[in-house]
Amino acid sequence: MSSPDPPFRTISIIGLGLIGGSIALAVRERWPSTRITGVDRKAVLAHALGGGAIDRSADSAADAADADLIVLAAPVRQNLKLLAEITQRLPAAAIVTDVGSTKRGIVDAAAALACPSFVGGHPIGGAEQGGFGFARPDLFNHRPWIFTPAPSTAPALVDRLFEFAHGVGARPSTMDPTEHDRVMAFLSHLPQLTASALMDVIGSSAGGGALRLAGRGLVDTTRLASSPAETWRDVCATNADAVAEALDQLIARLSELRADLRGGEAVSRVFAEAAKWRAELMSGRD
Amino acid sequence: MSSPDPPFRTISIIGLGLIGGSIALAVRERWPSTRITGVDRKAVLAHALGGGAIDRSADSAADAADADLIVLAAPVRQNLKLLAEITQRLPAAAIVTDVGSTKRGIVDAAAALACPSFVGGHPIGGAEQGGFGFARPDLFNHRPWIFTPAPSTAPALVDRLFEFAHGVGARPSTMDPTEHDRVMAFLSHLPQLTASALMDVIGSSAGGGALRLAGRGLVDTTRLASSPAETWRDVCATNADAVAEALDQLIARLSELRADLRGGEAVSRVFAEAAKWRAELMSGRD
Repeated sequence: MSSPDPPFRTISIIGLGLIGGSIALAVRERWPSTRITGVDRKAVLAHALGGGAIDRSADSAADAADADLIVLAAPVRQNLKLLAEITQRLPAAAIVTDVGSTKRGIVDAAAALACPSFVGGHPIGGAEQGGFGFARPDLFNHRPWIFTPAPSTAPALVDRLFEFAHGVGARPSTMDPTEHDRVMAFLSHLPQLTASALMDVIGSSAGGGALRLAGRGLVDTTRLASSPAETWRDVCATNADAVAEALDQLIARLSELRADLRGGEAVSRVFAEAAKWRAELMSGRD
Repeated sequence: MSSPDPPFRTISIIGLGLIGGSIALAVRERWPSTRITGVDRKAVLAHALGGGAIDRSADSAADAADADLIVLAAPVRQNLKLLAEITQRLPAAAIVTDVGSTKRGIVDAAAALACPSFVGGHPIGGAEQGGFGFARPDLFNHRPWIFTPAPSTAPALVDRLFEFAHGVGARPSTMDPTEHDRVMAFLSHLPQLTASALMDVIGSSAGGGALRLAGRGLVDTTRLASSPAETWRDVCATNADAVAEALDQLIARLSELRADLRGGEAVSRVFAEAAKWRAELMSGRD
């Protein structure tokens, strides 16, 4: 692959988990000349430096603010604090983005901090397990990357972030932050909470010994149930109203099924609708 | 592989869907000399005969009852009727089993019919899609196959069914039918209903256009949502009390999460438990 001029000569990534680490690896592969600074715990930094994923480490986000692009890739509520810490130290031409799963909170925080350099972002990659050890350069390949600019955001900032996202293989688009959070409450946060609740209920009721009798269906349905609590506490706290609405709808649907187990009309209706939506979900996927 | 003496020289399979079809293919591979008779719709029979999965077709279960082993592999409530149709026509040495997902109903029916040849069975294979077109000879490989003999069942019948299940690669065991149905309500029926309800809620609330923004998590969590309604109407109807209990527990857990989205203590607790059970579910899997 050719190495075109990089959209950013220097990038700081605050948080080298699955997403932050994968951004480092993808940038390294696509634009080898870009200098990458990482901020994380010492053990993670040693791993990332040792493998060549980053060029240097910094002790804090404030120390890493002097870059063309700063990516906040810590859990959502930590990103809110990090944004406050770096806002006063940004170079004039810097762009700041984040990769959090909820967008209203940080977009509002950027407005309150009067930080015009910030554009919220959400790359939809994801994998079964988090952490730098699972990072990979192709995590974003053919996957959506949603940006949530404010009405006051300079269009040039969004253009450069689109160029960046395209460069690492993603499909960038823009969305209103409130609409983003509502849609993601259904598409992402509800399935995650459901998978974890389901695994907890099944384990505690059926017992560990019975799990060897489970079929592939349970394995698939609970694949998300290894997800880290800390990440999801932040997502739930910063999107509580939308997640509550999504949970209410699922609880209502499960209650409809429960009320008609012997009759079966609710089962027939829900299964027919589900099969239709499942086919739509899978159509056009790679 | 050698071809040892088959445990059954003639086998009739009533219903050539994913499970019945896979049994035919597995028997064909393991014991080529065993003669297989199939009963199903004409198009399915033509497919199975054309590919050599069965040796001959019969028009009804009653016409196929003259075999060493009769496998009832239709939806659960059809199996109840089929058992009644064949009971009076069975050869003295025949064994009848079924492959349904619930066991109390058919074990009770066999008792009511005074059919000592019947032993309930449940091979736990499963695949994303049903039907003969997805059948495969290795579906049961390394997978559990649970039998639910009655106290009055002759041990020799169970021994021969164990030999049969071992021969097609499965790991046979026995279980009380009531315990089976309770455990499967959690391990199998609850995940299925949850996946379908989740897909229905997400599709109808987020809308078809938004589904392109879904990550891999939703794809995994709703993999079961293509399952056929007819099969699951029967499962729910014949295991309503146990499925209701499982649904109640999931609804309660989702309600706990909903009540504490901002605080996050319920999220932390449920995620920690779920990650522990998920690790246990995956330990020792092939």
